Amino acid sequence: MRIIGIDPGLLHTGWAIIDSVGPSRHYIASGVVLPPTKLELADRLSFIFQKVTEICETFNPDVCSIEFTFVNKNPKTTLLLGHARAAAIVAVANREIPVFEYEPNLIKKALTGAGHADKEQIYKMLKILLPMAHPKTPDESDAIAIAMTHANMSAFAGLK
Amino acid sequence: MRIIGIDPGLLHTGWAIIDSVGPSRHYIASGVVLPPTKLELADRLSFIFQKVTEICETFNPDVCSIEFTFVNKNPKTTLLLGHARAAAIVAVANREIPVFEYEPNLIKKALTGAGHADKEQIYKMLKILLPMAHPKTPDESDAIAIAMTHANMSAFAGLK
Repeated sequence: MRIIGIDPGLLHTGWAIIDSVGPSRHYIASGVVLPPTKLELADRLSFIFQKVTEICETFNPDVCSIEFTFVNKNPKTTLLLGHARAAAIVAVANREIPVFEYEPNLIKKALTGAGHADKEQIYKMLKILLPMAHPKTPDESDAIAIAMTHANMSAFAGLK
Repeated sequence: MRIIGIDPGLLHTGWAIIDSVGPSRHYIASGVVLPPTKLELADRLSFIFQKVTEICETFNPDVCSIEFTFVNKNPKTTLLLGHARAAAIVAVANREIPVFEYEPNLIKKALTGAGHADKEQIYKMLKILLPMAHPKTPDESDAIAIAMTHANMSAFAGLK
């Protein structure tokens, strides 16, 4: 099962591709979609959509794993995050790739055993589980963690 | 100038096409995108994207007019609305159609002269301005009002 993990954002959208075969996880690729800063909202969303579409065309994932968005302390920021998230989801769903949503604490717990692990702990665990991964930014690291969560959760649920 | 007006929503997305030529406004078409109720979020967004893409292919609008979304009393609802809005925006922006955003009160004021006009007043004014329009739902009526707002505002700003 090939999984695309997505950590969406209007400024940086992290993405990662991993393969999950039985109990094994293999790192394939990861990166960050960076819309040019001068773009307005609509063109920024179109940019995210097109890049995620290209990533899906290149790596042909079977499923998509994405963080569930809660309304946080800043609802305006959450609303903009929702726009970026939808642009990525549409790109994936247009290709009939099923989308699984995971809560942030579950992602941390599935990877490190702690629901309140910080980014450093997540990064360290990723380096142990996927030594070939060299995420350069937290968005890329989070996208790998999100993909790993689906691998682990579906194995746990007997879905693999 | 051909304008597509969009009133986005996860349950109903109203759309309208009007032509604006000098001081004249011509009703072309309108309707509502209704994703099947059984669809999950990702497939619902993909449905909205595909239908708005089809409407753009059919009517070839020059510009898009859409309501600006504020965070309202229910931030969770606003977040979901943001997802639907982004799915529609991506469909339009992918075709390099410029997107203009208008605040709800401006839409009401541009059409009726009152920033707090109710749906009934908007409907009555639309029937006077565009006698050929027969919107069957508030979403369709709102989409026509949003398209008319861009026609009036761009004429006012000398953009027509």
